[in-house]
Amino acid sequence: MATVDRWLLPDGIEEVLPPYAGRIEVARRQVLDLFQRWGYEFVVTPHIEYLESLLTGAGQDLDLRTFKVTDPLSGRQMGFRADITPQVARIDAHTLRREGPSRLCYAGSVVHAQPRALTTSRSPIQLGAELYGDASPASDVEVISLLVNTLELAAVPDVHMDLGHVGIYRGLARAAELSGEVEQQLFDALQRKALDEVVELTETLPDDLHKMLRALSELCGGREVLDLAQACLVDAPDDVHAALDDLMAIADALSLRYPELPLYFDLGELRGYHYHTGVVFAAFVPGVGYAIAQGGRYDDIGADFGRARPATGFSTDLKTLVSLGQMQLGEEPAGVWAPDNHDVFLWQAIVRLRQDGQRVVQALPGQVAADAEAAGCDRQLLLRDGRWQLAALTA
Amino acid sequence: MATVDRWLLPDGIEEVLPPYAGRIEVARRQVLDLFQRWGYEFVVTPHIEYLESLLTGAGQDLDLRTFKVTDPLSGRQMGFRADITPQVARIDAHTLRREGPSRLCYAGSVVHAQPRALTTSRSPIQLGAELYGDASPASDVEVISLLVNTLELAAVPDVHMDLGHVGIYRGLARAAELSGEVEQQLFDALQRKALDEVVELTETLPDDLHKMLRALSELCGGREVLDLAQACLVDAPDDVHAALDDLMAIADALSLRYPELPLYFDLGELRGYHYHTGVVFAAFVPGVGYAIAQGGRYDDIGADFGRARPATGFSTDLKTLVSLGQMQLGEEPAGVWAPDNHDVFLWQAIVRLRQDGQRVVQALPGQVAADAEAAGCDRQLLLRDGRWQLAALTA
Repeated sequence: MATVDRWLLPDGIEEVLPPYAGRIEVARRQVLDLFQRWGYEFVVTPHIEYLESLLTGAGQDLDLRTFKVTDPLSGRQMGFRADITPQVARIDAHTLRREGPSRLCYAGSVVHAQPRALTTSRSPIQLGAELYGDASPASDVEVISLLVNTLELAAVPDVHMDLGHVGIYRGLARAAELSGEVEQQLFDALQRKALDEVVELTETLPDDLHKMLRALSELCGGREVLDLAQACLVDAPDDVHAALDDLMAIADALSLRYPELPLYFDLGELRGYHYHTGVVFAAFVPGVGYAIAQGGRYDDIGADFGRARPATGFSTDLKTLVSLGQMQLGEEPAGVWAPDNHDVFLWQAIVRLRQDGQRVVQALPGQVAADAEAAGCDRQLLLRDGRWQLAALTA
Repeated sequence: MATVDRWLLPDGIEEVLPPYAGRIEVARRQVLDLFQRWGYEFVVTPHIEYLESLLTGAGQDLDLRTFKVTDPLSGRQMGFRADITPQVARIDAHTLRREGPSRLCYAGSVVHAQPRALTTSRSPIQLGAELYGDASPASDVEVISLLVNTLELAAVPDVHMDLGHVGIYRGLARAAELSGEVEQQLFDALQRKALDEVVELTETLPDDLHKMLRALSELCGGREVLDLAQACLVDAPDDVHAALDDLMAIADALSLRYPELPLYFDLGELRGYHYHTGVVFAAFVPGVGYAIAQGGRYDDIGADFGRARPATGFSTDLKTLVSLGQMQLGEEPAGVWAPDNHDVFLWQAIVRLRQDGQRVVQALPGQVAADAEAAGCDRQLLLRDGRWQLAALTA
């Protein structure tokens, strides 16, 4: 690799420079502080662990996104985390082992071998919150509300929220006794809203199931979709009705809290169908072709760690929030310039200023007061009347 | 992998749980704020990049510590960062391309394929600061001072600082015209303080060089060692004297600033000899068999990225600082318990409290006031006289 190329970063892998990195750090703190005010406790998960733990409950997508290496100590396969959610589920199910509800949050880099989409980063900073131990819609409402507040804090404009529920399709597919293969084909067709294929795949089914499955691909739009769904799915099994009732309860609670937030429903949208078990949601903004935050219920994820607890949560990417948002992150504070001088009294003056929270940059040999501005300083320490004193920075 | 094993973490890979994770986060912020007050700008480097960039200027140790994978997009070899220092050097040399001095800092996880020592973590959270663009001892004094203040902030007791200078050995080895192989053997022998081997490897050299190289392994101890070195090395080449003068200047400046800090000198200690070019230093505490922080000058590191700038800096591990230190990190703030109730006025009361910075945990269905304590709450929201009001948490 020639010198000229050595600084190249791989596609989709970014470094963050000043002053943007400082703003990312401020945003990180503000979001984590928000999570904390909602009662979510911070956890730090490892960047690498055994592959079986990382991929538990996850679909093939995550497998493809995960870099794999062999552990030289144990000889076993390890992976670099591409998603923090399964790790936090392990902490809840195995390590903490609490009886009651548990609220956990995290913020950390993940690495994707393959990007989620052509233009997305392979090194997002994943932020998220998870609520374990409660299966009621109240938990879903709480985590979606926390997501809405996170987006508000980040000042992301024009957010709308997509809501769905995988229990509706799953209940119908079960009632139709579809083979695994056909269920997967139908799932794919619904995702692509390929109505022809949906019709073809369901035409041998009893008439009511055929109609209901076909209807799913058209049940998308505003709040009226849910009432329409109740009418269309009137003959569906009980678990489909229960799913629809949950989705309505969640939608109504959110509308009460955030009357201005546009909600969009799509009963054929099955984001994360492989591991989700209930409501699924995603936040979108105009002009961005992918969800800027997403989540849902995934009640079974802890089972592989010995304890299946109800679970719901969301995740987003800090860099996306900061780039799309209009967060007031403050500027680097101005500073005090100190001359290049070994006088111990100067040193003591610098120590005191820093203890008071001031930023002080000391000149290096050869630097003069004219360099102070480039260092972001607007004042200086000057020796006057035998004492080091703060003074304006004059040219 | 059986369910019972799936939660196992690989040796040396740790997760951090509440409430310890919250304390790690507070410590992280305090240290980064300290760096900021000293004029160091925050950067975020990627967890993965092309191997050539990661291993630039580094020794074989770092190569062994680095996990490698193939990039599916480019087909090129990538590595997971085991050290952030070379990444920051790339940012200074290539990306920022500033003319004057540049102060950069960072905090992030690194992953080690092989632990540094048998008992050390393979997933430290590396914190560090680097100063580029100035070759004078003033920069070394600044970064060592910042390290001392970082350890003071972390309230790590009984720190002592080891100081050395690789230019002393390097100058003598050059004067002796040692072959690369012999220089390496002699280096190893000095590191192990194997005086027999040092004598054997140098006995064919001119008498003065033989004596001076042999003396190196015994030149360790307090400040008097530097005076002794001046006497022992009086016939050494000029670059050796210059190195010794720099080391003395640094030691004297540090003693002036931190008269209570024990300094220990070891001229045969060649920590990081492969990439260091000047002063080297490490902080130790009693009872811990490895350096808790280390650094030094490495002026050539930017050359591979097209620009060799003077560079000096240090790094440490956040988890080590928190576990060894007695930092006052505060406790999780007590909180307010809100009942499980969909009343929109309750919601508004919760929103207001959180906006005021209060921690509010809302009960989930089935939870009662008795669960409030487990959620870390000491007050509750109660409906009194038609208004939601704060009240003490009574049994």
